[in-house]
Amino acid sequence: MPANDIQLDEHGRLRHFLAIDGLNHDLLVQILDTAENFAGIGHRVVKKIPLLRGKTVINLFFEPSTRTLTTFELAAKRLSADVLNLNVPTSSTSKGESLLDTLQTLEAMHCDMFVVRHQMSGAAHFIAQHVAPEVSVINGGDGRHSHPTQAMLDLFTIRRHKQGFTDLTVAIVGDVAHSRVARSQIAALRMLQTGEVRVVGPKTLIPPGLPADVRIFHDLKDGLHDADVVIMLRLQKERMQGSTLPSSQEYFQVWGLTEKRLYAAKENVIVMHPGPLNRGVEISSEVADGDRSVILQQVSYGIAVRMAVMSMTLGRGAQTERAHAH
Amino acid sequence: MPANDIQLDEHGRLRHFLAIDGLNHDLLVQILDTAENFAGIGHRVVKKIPLLRGKTVINLFFEPSTRTLTTFELAAKRLSADVLNLNVPTSSTSKGESLLDTLQTLEAMHCDMFVVRHQMSGAAHFIAQHVAPEVSVINGGDGRHSHPTQAMLDLFTIRRHKQGFTDLTVAIVGDVAHSRVARSQIAALRMLQTGEVRVVGPKTLIPPGLPADVRIFHDLKDGLHDADVVIMLRLQKERMQGSTLPSSQEYFQVWGLTEKRLYAAKENVIVMHPGPLNRGVEISSEVADGDRSVILQQVSYGIAVRMAVMSMTLGRGAQTERAHAH
Amino acid sequence: MPANDIQLDEHGRLRHFLAIDGLNHDLLVQILDTAENFAGIGHRVVKKIPLLRGKTVINLFFEPSTRTLTTFELAAKRLSADVLNLNVPTSSTSKGESLLDTLQTLEAMHCDMFVVRHQMSGAAHFIAQHVAPEVSVINGGDGRHSHPTQAMLDLFTIRRHKQGFTDLTVAIVGDVAHSRVARSQIAALRMLQTGEVRVVGPKTLIPPGLPADVRIFHDLKDGLHDADVVIMLRLQKERMQGSTLPSSQEYFQVWGLTEKRLYAAKENVIVMHPGPLNRGVEISSEVADGDRSVILQQVSYGIAVRMAVMSMTLGRGAQTERAHAH
Repeated sequence: MPANDIQLDEHGRLRHFLAIDGLNHDLLVQILDTAENFAGIGHRVVKKIPLLRGKTVINLFFEPSTRTLTTFELAAKRLSADVLNLNVPTSSTSKGESLLDTLQTLEAMHCDMFVVRHQMSGAAHFIAQHVAPEVSVINGGDGRHSHPTQAMLDLFTIRRHKQGFTDLTVAIVGDVAHSRVARSQIAALRMLQTGEVRVVGPKTLIPPGLPADVRIFHDLKDGLHDADVVIMLRLQKERMQGSTLPSSQEYFQVWGLTEKRLYAAKENVIVMHPGPLNRGVEISSEVADGDRSVILQQVSYGIAVRMAVMSMTLGRGAQTERAHAH
Repeated sequence: MPANDIQLDEHGRLRHFLAIDGLNHDLLVQILDTAENFAGIGHRVVKKIPLLRGKTVINLFFEPSTRTLTTFELAAKRLSADVLNLNVPTSSTSKGESLLDTLQTLEAMHCDMFVVRHQMSGAAHFIAQHVAPEVSVINGGDGRHSHPTQAMLDLFTIRRHKQGFTDLTVAIVGDVAHSRVARSQIAALRMLQTGEVRVVGPKTLIPPGLPADVRIFHDLKDGLHDADVVIMLRLQKERMQGSTLPSSQEYFQVWGLTEKRLYAAKENVIVMHPGPLNRGVEISSEVADGDRSVILQQVSYGIAVRMAVMSMTLGRGAQTERAHAH
Repeated sequence: MPANDIQLDEHGRLRHFLAIDGLNHDLLVQILDTAENFAGIGHRVVKKIPLLRGKTVINLFFEPSTRTLTTFELAAKRLSADVLNLNVPTSSTSKGESLLDTLQTLEAMHCDMFVVRHQMSGAAHFIAQHVAPEVSVINGGDGRHSHPTQAMLDLFTIRRHKQGFTDLTVAIVGDVAHSRVARSQIAALRMLQTGEVRVVGPKTLIPPGLPADVRIFHDLKDGLHDADVVIMLRLQKERMQGSTLPSSQEYFQVWGLTEKRLYAAKENVIVMHPGPLNRGVEISSEVADGDRSVILQQVSYGIAVRMAVMSMTLGRGAQTERAHAH
């Protein structure tokens, strides 16, 4: 099958990892299966494999995000890559250098991968369009647009707990409009043929233009009814400029996930959250720390999923060489 | 002997390293003996051993301290661990995440050790109380309370130069009240049955509640008389708020260690200082750079002592496995 | 031949790398030849060799420079050294510690190399005069004075494209007065007996005291005439205090390198620039991205040249040991 998405190479293999859109069912499953191989590595005495030894990974962060940076740095180091963290606002662009010049300069140093975090939608795509053929780009979150490794770790968490997707009802609850992860989650869940995908939240926080098969709820109880998986979103207070949103307390009154409200869902429901938590705003501590919460497991799986994406994109050469050797 | 201190595991081995209090004579000697094995590594061509390969060490610094950070980073790298430096104030807590959520998130990434530096007394203990069973915490200095790796490197320096402790007179001079290291030093020296421990300084800088067997001097000459070891403390100007202390110059006039004043001590006295030096405040350059000063050797030994503590806490699993294999 | 320059050891081998002045023809050629061995490493699957495994390299940056820091960090990591980045202004000196105390402290931690970046001329020399015998210092750029690794990568680029130097005309164009690299370039080109070295620029930007055999041009067309190599300098706007320089646009009108102006040079001229580019100020995008530009190759070669200098200075011990073994 010829690939026409920038993310795939001429053999349909993952070259960049920028967004769920443009990928396909089989690739998502391949990422999940590869991550499965890495999921146990965190429990080993030596948490390191030499898969990317001698490769150079640049964390190119145009906005700070310690949590995301840490996960990518750890994933790269556990694959034995050399990692450099570049905080771009405080560096070369301050000398008036353009983004493309910065990129070309880093490429000329023979870097193999850029993990890009940017406040503007499409930044990672833009960079991927301009890098040299042997360089891979991973989107570490761009604007409101996409955060695909987060979506994949959510899928991985669901598959680990629920085995498949086709019979599941998944409710995504809260500030969908300002979430960079919600769009990626919806795309990924649909691509894996999830039984029912719901978004649940106040009208002001549900964006227009959602896919027709996504069910929209403006009542929390209705939205949670018989759900197998509840994905809580972080209330992006810092992204809401001039919003008419009520106070955090008022928000919790109506939209906060409590044990009591969770009764509406299935008994074996799992509760997810991308972190960091706003306790007492979108979620109660009782639920976040309760036994249906899989929030910390999401973090663990996040390392495995990032190792999977890194090794699939950067390991293509090795596969090709091996293929040619036959 | 069953251990009831949080720092020890059920076999009485070092699990965390938070404070001298709660440890015992044999453990301190074990740390010094282990450090002895690492002390030569700085002189080798390859200054690296694979003891902690595949382990992840997080330097979790809530206040900046380049010097302390550097020593722990070097120690971890020379043990072949992967090291991540997290400067916490500028990162996740800025998104309103609680300390415990940050910790749990890092733990979920399968980190093995936190080196904690915090401006609040008890912070490292608090963190140690809440980490997962397989995680170790090392106190890199908390508030005015404790700085135990500094105390251990002081002991190591003394033992290297004076062989034992029981016949020694050790004078700790200066700003004892605001020093996070003085408390740890006093505890450690007493635990190793040092002949005589003295604190020497103006009344305003000697805290109440010192152990009864610690001798207090408010006259420098008397305090230095026949001392084998003089430990100068840094004048913590930045910690003295609204103090009625005289100027640096006036302080040096009365309390600064000069060659002349050092005549009061034994002829083979050694002079120590935790650094960074306030030259011309608590110590003259003549003394700091003189042949009785062992200040730079303290720095060298600091790497060995930190390697010792890291390998003892993180290497317990290996020991247990080996023990079980017999 | 006994060496009387601080940069050379008693066998005339490179101990520090601080400036081109004080080195000699053979040493420059040796650096270029060594870099040649490393130039291919960026294209390998595993871009790493174990030459400096177990060595500790400290990037001691007193002024920020992401680009320079990145190249030295990458070079050290590809040689398998352990690397620590110390941003000094925000660290120990803020506690009032002197530069020499900081240095001695780092030395006591058994660091093997300091890469020094400083805003003051002579800073790297000063540090090299005070380090322990086994420590090497590399100048990563000091004040307006020197940036010798940049000069060496320029030479390397020229030799790769033009084979030799003796028949070449090399024009250095622009803000020579404020450039830390121009002085190093002129010294290096003369040492390698370059046919003709020119500086080209407005009177206000050409410093007094250039060597007598350097030809000075105040007209761009004349200066470019029949040149084999054109080295454009960055307009150091941030270094010109109270200057009477015209606007960037006016500067480009008279001194900007365009395709049209480049006709004056030889047909197979190569165009170089140390980066970062001020597009539309000292150089047009057409030229910078054109097929006579070797600007990105300079960046690639920069890693190889830094690896060469690092391995030559730090690898001396091994050579000596081997020599003694015979």
